[in-house]
Amino acid sequence: MPGDKIINVSVRDVRFPTSLEQHGSDAMHTDPDYSVAYVVLETEAALKGYGLTFTVGRGTEIVVCAVKALSTLVVGKTLEEITGDFRGFYRLLSSDGQMRWIGPEKGVIQLATAAILNAVWDLWARVEGKPLWKLLVDMDPAKLISCIDFRYITDALTEQEALDILVKAKAGQKTREEQMLREGYPAYTTSCAWLGYTDQQLTQLCSDALAQGWTKFKVKVGADLQDDIRRCSLIRKLIGPDKTLMIDANQRWDVNEAVTWVTKLAEFHPLWIEEPTSPDDILGHASISKALAPFGIGVATGEQCHNRVMFKQFLQASALQFVQIDSCRVGSVNENLAIILMAAKFNVPVCPHAGGVGLCELVQHLILFDYISVSASLSNRMCEFVDHLHEHFKSPTNIRNAHYIPPVDPGFSCEMLEESVKKHQYPEGEVWRAIEKQGKL
Amino acid sequence: MPGDKIINVSVRDVRFPTSLEQHGSDAMHTDPDYSVAYVVLETEAALKGYGLTFTVGRGTEIVVCAVKALSTLVVGKTLEEITGDFRGFYRLLSSDGQMRWIGPEKGVIQLATAAILNAVWDLWARVEGKPLWKLLVDMDPAKLISCIDFRYITDALTEQEALDILVKAKAGQKTREEQMLREGYPAYTTSCAWLGYTDQQLTQLCSDALAQGWTKFKVKVGADLQDDIRRCSLIRKLIGPDKTLMIDANQRWDVNEAVTWVTKLAEFHPLWIEEPTSPDDILGHASISKALAPFGIGVATGEQCHNRVMFKQFLQASALQFVQIDSCRVGSVNENLAIILMAAKFNVPVCPHAGGVGLCELVQHLILFDYISVSASLSNRMCEFVDHLHEHFKSPTNIRNAHYIPPVDPGFSCEMLEESVKKHQYPEGEVWRAIEKQGKL
Repeated sequence: MPGDKIINVSVRDVRFPTSLEQHGSDAMHTDPDYSVAYVVLETEAALKGYGLTFTVGRGTEIVVCAVKALSTLVVGKTLEEITGDFRGFYRLLSSDGQMRWIGPEKGVIQLATAAILNAVWDLWARVEGKPLWKLLVDMDPAKLISCIDFRYITDALTEQEALDILVKAKAGQKTREEQMLREGYPAYTTSCAWLGYTDQQLTQLCSDALAQGWTKFKVKVGADLQDDIRRCSLIRKLIGPDKTLMIDANQRWDVNEAVTWVTKLAEFHPLWIEEPTSPDDILGHASISKALAPFGIGVATGEQCHNRVMFKQFLQASALQFVQIDSCRVGSVNENLAIILMAAKFNVPVCPHAGGVGLCELVQHLILFDYISVSASLSNRMCEFVDHLHEHFKSPTNIRNAHYIPPVDPGFSCEMLEESVKKHQYPEGEVWRAIEKQGKL
Repeated sequence: MPGDKIINVSVRDVRFPTSLEQHGSDAMHTDPDYSVAYVVLETEAALKGYGLTFTVGRGTEIVVCAVKALSTLVVGKTLEEITGDFRGFYRLLSSDGQMRWIGPEKGVIQLATAAILNAVWDLWARVEGKPLWKLLVDMDPAKLISCIDFRYITDALTEQEALDILVKAKAGQKTREEQMLREGYPAYTTSCAWLGYTDQQLTQLCSDALAQGWTKFKVKVGADLQDDIRRCSLIRKLIGPDKTLMIDANQRWDVNEAVTWVTKLAEFHPLWIEEPTSPDDILGHASISKALAPFGIGVATGEQCHNRVMFKQFLQASALQFVQIDSCRVGSVNENLAIILMAAKFNVPVCPHAGGVGLCELVQHLILFDYISVSASLSNRMCEFVDHLHEHFKSPTNIRNAHYIPPVDPGFSCEMLEESVKKHQYPEGEVWRAIEKQGKL
């Protein structure tokens, strides 16, 4: 289409001082300032695509630097060129003969790739006049497959197998789409029990959440066993035996320690233990999964699993029972499509990671696609929700009765309010200038 | 000691235009400009520590940005504080509650950690008046162990096991040290057969190398099977049946493709296939290892293996038969100590990755330590050597009869000639200004 050449990529470092109130605190990230590297693409015809990747404060400037480096590969391309060979464009960004050395497909450069590609998908969905989930759901399976780089995963999932999964799931798609528009996608809340919260805060927040219809709750654990026992006991009592409890250690333990510790929390019947150890430790997660299976506790991980090759192995090794895709850690929708399809092949439920800034806004599109067009199941499936910072988005999440109601605005829900961006730009925004003046951080 | 407080950390982006002549070209890095993020620590007493991490051109500025971010954790510490609890300092850098999100312990932030810690080790060795290998060899085993962060690897190697390995290897240490000073450590050459070289270049370089006493040769493969067959055949004929040939695909293949392709090169009897697939694919490397074992071909990998947790799994899964440590990819000496000790426990030889800029200068110290103080064996062991860019270092490698002669100058051999640094700083150095003027790159 005319005028769809990308002529500018801007990126800004936007931080929210969440550490002041211990929102988001866990066993490894004790003082997060929820942040984003915020990308805006602009076309000749003045169309815009918005994208972001999530960070937790210091280091966001490094991701910003990486986005600038990758931008040179984006400026000058038309949207049609990109989406006409999206696999090729993905490969261009992830496999640049010089920049791949500082990854490859991991860490800072992968986060930057995510931010840029999220913006491209946003632009594409806007041009098509659809929310991203609908763009995906309506897309021809062969076209969807053409967006995925199958390099390094063909031993687990071939293009043909991926296509077969999508074609097979066409049956009932319309019904599921209607169901989602009516009821929404089931969510769980992590807002009640951050590690830095007092028991009093926890009790209050949990009671409020119950009153609002929440039935699934996640608790941060891993810093102190006695604290964990007290907090899990408290929450289990508050929510009763039938509601769902999950626990999350944010990588705090070594393998054997994880098994010992979680065994002592088994009496509270958590559905899963999340991130028990290093996000890189596939074999470690497999050992933990095996040891905890007799207790009916699964292992969940993914928010720091850096690419499809790692997810492939987690699935091959039966190292997780819940796949926690993240919209900003891996290479955007392209790579998440690969992960969702591998999870379907291995018959493991996808339960996205969200929270932070914008992660809920983004990932709801992916999990709606998963249900409508891939897994066709809600069994053991739910999407994380954290009630923070949504007010900074133009199309914030819409939660009703603990369900994500499908977004209707065209795009990937990445666009932030310009006023919020300006206020929170680091270090020059007024919020940060005020904090500096008060000497708070 | 007085005056050992670090008061400044500087970092520069230094690039060499190696892509102009296809030095260093392989199946995935077709146009590398060998580069470093070059770090200089300065103490109150004006002592200096030099460190670097290796990159291949674009993206070096991102690593520079990350070094600057991590520097805030270094400035103000004394060398004594750092080396008195080096494990704690390592943890401080690798586990910062905000910055770990953009790793953790991988990609850009890990490369930056390597550069800084390499400089700290250089400073320490200078203060002790010893080359780094000698500092390590003379160090009390308990002190060595205290430099290692065992987090996430205790299921494979406990502190006690690591200590036992070091104590046991004390026997014969003096003899091995004398042997190294006399004979040097065996090396192999990669300089003869980069992918971008013509057959004529290859023949000439290989003949020259034979004349200089080289007996072990590595060939880049993976772009085109017929080319690979021709090149391997040519080299095997040149070197004869008794000398050692290794092949290196630099991650070009998927798992099944790797097995098929390498099987077709089996007639040339390569000792190993290096980086057959994604550096993240532990289970893939295990499959390839199993499939190639009947041909007597081992699997080697490590130059892009980002931390000890990944190496742990490669060893646990029998996914490699040669551990290729790199001095700049993981968390410096601290993490390489862990990897060397795990390799010893699993009885797998360490054959370091080198080349690039400064990698030979640095890694020779680690492999000397491995032989003298850990493995006590030269069986199936050798260190890579590439004859490029050594002239830019103050204490360049000294190769004699295809052996690395142990460095004698105090430090970690990281210091570059200030004139070289200034000339090659990117983009303002005169070398780059001249290239820009000529419009060559």
